[in-house]
Amino acid sequence: MAKEVTKRSENYSQWYNDLVVKADLAEQSAVRGCMVIKPYGYAIWEKMQSVLDGMFKKTGVQNAYFPLFIPKSFFSREAEHVAGFAKECAVVTHHRLMNDPDGKGVVVDPSAKLEEELIVRPTSETIIWNTYKNWIKSWRDLPILCNQWCNVVRWEMRTRLFLRTAEFLWQEGHTAHATSEEAQAKAYEMVQVYADFARSCLALPVIVGHKSPNERFAGALDTLTIEAMMQDGKALQAGTSHFLGQNFAKSFDVTYQSKEGTQEYVWATSWGVSTRLMGALIMAHGDDNGLVLPPALAPIQVVMVPIFKTEEGHQAILDKMYEIKKGLEAMGHSVKIDDRDTLRPGFKFAEWELKGVPVRLAMGERDLANSTVEIARRDTLTKETVGLEGIEQHIHALMDDIQNNIYEKALQFRESNIRKCDDWEEFKTEIQKGGFLLCHWDGSAETEQKIKDETKATIRCIPIDSCVCEEEGKCIYSGKPSNRRVVFAISY
Amino acid sequence: MAKEVTKRSENYSQWYNDLVVKADLAEQSAVRGCMVIKPYGYAIWEKMQSVLDGMFKKTGVQNAYFPLFIPKSFFSREAEHVAGFAKECAVVTHHRLMNDPDGKGVVVDPSAKLEEELIVRPTSETIIWNTYKNWIKSWRDLPILCNQWCNVVRWEMRTRLFLRTAEFLWQEGHTAHATSEEAQAKAYEMVQVYADFARSCLALPVIVGHKSPNERFAGALDTLTIEAMMQDGKALQAGTSHFLGQNFAKSFDVTYQSKEGTQEYVWATSWGVSTRLMGALIMAHGDDNGLVLPPALAPIQVVMVPIFKTEEGHQAILDKMYEIKKGLEAMGHSVKIDDRDTLRPGFKFAEWELKGVPVRLAMGERDLANSTVEIARRDTLTKETVGLEGIEQHIHALMDDIQNNIYEKALQFRESNIRKCDDWEEFKTEIQKGGFLLCHWDGSAETEQKIKDETKATIRCIPIDSCVCEEEGKCIYSGKPSNRRVVFAISY
Repeated sequence: MAKEVTKRSENYSQWYNDLVVKADLAEQSAVRGCMVIKPYGYAIWEKMQSVLDGMFKKTGVQNAYFPLFIPKSFFSREAEHVAGFAKECAVVTHHRLMNDPDGKGVVVDPSAKLEEELIVRPTSETIIWNTYKNWIKSWRDLPILCNQWCNVVRWEMRTRLFLRTAEFLWQEGHTAHATSEEAQAKAYEMVQVYADFARSCLALPVIVGHKSPNERFAGALDTLTIEAMMQDGKALQAGTSHFLGQNFAKSFDVTYQSKEGTQEYVWATSWGVSTRLMGALIMAHGDDNGLVLPPALAPIQVVMVPIFKTEEGHQAILDKMYEIKKGLEAMGHSVKIDDRDTLRPGFKFAEWELKGVPVRLAMGERDLANSTVEIARRDTLTKETVGLEGIEQHIHALMDDIQNNIYEKALQFRESNIRKCDDWEEFKTEIQKGGFLLCHWDGSAETEQKIKDETKATIRCIPIDSCVCEEEGKCIYSGKPSNRRVVFAISY
Repeated sequence: MAKEVTKRSENYSQWYNDLVVKADLAEQSAVRGCMVIKPYGYAIWEKMQSVLDGMFKKTGVQNAYFPLFIPKSFFSREAEHVAGFAKECAVVTHHRLMNDPDGKGVVVDPSAKLEEELIVRPTSETIIWNTYKNWIKSWRDLPILCNQWCNVVRWEMRTRLFLRTAEFLWQEGHTAHATSEEAQAKAYEMVQVYADFARSCLALPVIVGHKSPNERFAGALDTLTIEAMMQDGKALQAGTSHFLGQNFAKSFDVTYQSKEGTQEYVWATSWGVSTRLMGALIMAHGDDNGLVLPPALAPIQVVMVPIFKTEEGHQAILDKMYEIKKGLEAMGHSVKIDDRDTLRPGFKFAEWELKGVPVRLAMGERDLANSTVEIARRDTLTKETVGLEGIEQHIHALMDDIQNNIYEKALQFRESNIRKCDDWEEFKTEIQKGGFLLCHWDGSAETEQKIKDETKATIRCIPIDSCVCEEEGKCIYSGKPSNRRVVFAISY
C-alpha cells in the first residue's frame, strides 16, 4: 500500500490529518491557516451544498450576496457582537501596492491608506442588517429570508484542516421578521433542517438543543445547535441557528410600519454550517483504512477494477464494465472504472478504500466466464461474489443499505458512549474517557465555568429532543436543585 | 407605474442603472465599490453558474478552492503579471482589532502587524501555481484541470454595478499540461465553451478572437476573448481564456518528469467569466420597460395574474392557475402566481415587465368562462388570447421561441452595426456613432496605441470565426500592408 495511514488507536489526531491529506481532501497552503480544498474534497462539499441549498429553498429561503468587507465601525455598533467577534480578524488598511523604490518587488503604497479600515467578514450580521435597513419599510416587506454561500475569515491561532481554519467556506442565513414568535420559529425550523441533513445525508446522529448562555453566539438571545460525537468521544458542534431578538435591528435602526401603523423594530435570526462538516464526516465514519463516505455524499459511489491476464480478457471485462456503468448511471449513480495500466489491482483497492468509495467491483477473467463479479463494501469491508443478472438493482439497493448502516453504526457508537452521571468525582474521571455525560446543572454561568476550568468539559447543549432529560435532580457540581439534565463533553 | 425607468434614448447609462436597481438585481453597499447582489439578481447568476459548471465538467474540469489571500511576494515572481496586476488591490496588514484605549469602539492593534502583507486575490494564478508545484511530479499527474467559483477584489476607482466593481464573483479555471499544443487546445476549447454558453443561454451573439498583444492578460502569451455588442454600440468583453505558456511554471518552478525521464516546465492556461455577464445580459436585451430575460436564465419564466370582481371568481381563477402551474412545473418551468391583494393588475404587469419575466398570463372571469387566457410575451410586448386546451405545451414551445427571438434580435442589431471601414477620416467619425468597425491593422502596438489615443477605440479582437476577415489590405492608420481585418470598437 502506497500511503500508510496512522491507526486511530495510536494517534487519533494524526489519523485525522492523514485522512485529510492522503485521501486528497485538503492541504495547507502557503498562507498561514488557510487551506486548499482539493478536487476530491471539494466534490464532497459541493454535494453537501447542493442538498442543503435545496432544503433551504423548500423553506422559502433565497440566496443573495453581500460584501466581503465590513467597515470597522460596524463592529462597534452591537456591543455584545464586538466583544465576541472582530478581534482576531483580517484588517485591510491599504488599497495599492507600488514598485519598491529601493529594489525589486513591490511594497505597500503608504499614500493609499484607507480612511476607515475594512474587516474581512468573520460573519455578516452587521453589513446585512445595515442593508436590510433599506429593504424594510412596512410589514409587507417581511419576512426577508436570505442566505449566502461564501468565504469568511477568523484569524485563528491554532488551525486544523477543516475543523478550524483562518478562512473557511460556509453558508449564513439571515432572516428578518415582524414578530418574536415568527423569528424563534424560524431559528427552530432551521436547526431542524440541519439535524435532518446531518442524519439523512451525512449519516450523522446529532443531538439538537439550546446552548447555555455562556456558549451563545455573540449578540444572540438564544443559540440552537446540533452536536455530534466523534470516534474519540469528543463533541463536535456541527451547525448553529440563532434567535437574535431585536439586537441588530436596534443597532442598525431597522424598523417597520406595522399593520396598525406603529413603528416596530424587526426580529432576526441567523444560522450557518461550514466546511467544518467535512471534519465531522471524516471523524465520525473513517476507519484505519481511510475514509468511509456515505453514498449520499460520495463523489464516486462505485469503482470498478478490471483484473486480467490477457489483452483479450482485458477488453472483454472492460466492455462488461462499461455496460454496468451505463446502467448504474441511468439510475443516478456515479461510477468510475479504474483502468490505469501502471498500477496493480491491490494498490487500486487500497487507494479507493482510502478515499472511502462505498462500493468496489472487481472482475477477473474467470468472473466474466461465470457471469459473476466481486462486490466489496467499504463500510463493512466485506466481499461477496454475485451473479451479473440484475447487478444494477443489487447495487442500487446496496447504496441505501450502506447509507443506513453507516448511520446506525455511528448511532450505536454514540448510544454506548452517552451516560448519566450524578457524582462529581466520577464526572472528573469519566469525562476524560470521552463520550457525553448527561448531568444535572444548576443553570448558573458560574458553575459552568468552574466545571470547564476543572475538567475542560463544556455544556454542549440543553437537549430539545433525542434523549429523555427532563427529570428532577441536583446539580453535579453545586448540589443545587435542577429539573433537567444537560449534555457535557470535551469538544473540538 | 410605480417605478419609472429612464429611456435608453434619453440617457443610456442611467437606463442601465435604473434597470439594475429597480428590477432588484443589485445595489451599492456601504463599502465603496462593493455591491450587494439581491435575491432576484443572484438567482440569475445561479442559473448562469449551474449551466456553465455543467459545461466545464463535461470537458473534464473539476472544482477546487484556493485561498482568498496571496502573500505579497508572490506577485513579484512573474514580472509581467506584477506589472499588470496587484497594484490596485486590497492589502491586509494586521490580524487583530482591540478596544480603543481612548474611547468607545475598536481600533487596529498595532502589535498585530503581519510579517508579510497579504493581498486579497485579484486573480489566483500565483497561489495556484505555487500549489501545483506540489501536485505535479510526473507526466502521469498531468493534465490538471481545476476551476474555482469565488470572489476576487480589484480596487477600481470608478465602479458600476456588475460591470466594474471592487469585489466581484467569478470562476477562474487553471489548467496544467505537458505540452504547449495541449495547453493551447485547452484555451481554445474553453473560449468556445464561453461562446456556446453566451449564444445558447445568454442569447448573446459574440465574436471569438485573439486579443492584440497590448490587450493580453498580464503574463499570457495569447488571450482569447468573446466580444459582445451592447445596444449603445459599445463592445463588452464577456469572457477570456489565456494561454500562459510556461511563464507561471518558471516563476514557481513547476516541472514534471517526462516519459523519457527529462525534467520539463509545465504549460498553463487560465480562463474566467464573472458577474460582468449580468451587465451584458441587461444591456444586450433590456428595453425601456425593463429587463428582457432569456427563458434559459429567468428565475421566473411564467407569471400569472388573476383579474377578478368577485371572491368566487377569484377562487375559480386561482384553482385553474394552480392547475396550469402544476403542469408547467412538471415540464421543468418556473412559475409564479401573483395573488397579492394590495396591488392592481396594471401595477403587477409593469412590475413583471420591469423584471423581464418572459411570459405573463392574465385570466379574468370571462376568460375562465370561455376557457381562454391572455398570454403576453415580454420580448415582443405582444398579447394573444388562446384556448386553455394544451396551454402547457403552447407555453413550453413559446419558451424556445422567445429564447431564439431574443438571440436573433441581438444578432440582427449587431449585424446592422458592424461594417468595414478603410478610411481613417471616416473611422474617426464612424467609431463615435457606436458599433464595430472591421479594419486593416499593421499589427504594431504603436499604431494600436495611437488609434486609441485619438479615438478611444481599441482592438476588441482578431476574429477566429464569426466574420470573414482574411483579406489583403492596408492598415487604416499607417497604410502599411495587412492580411486581415480586426474588430475596432469603443468598449466597456
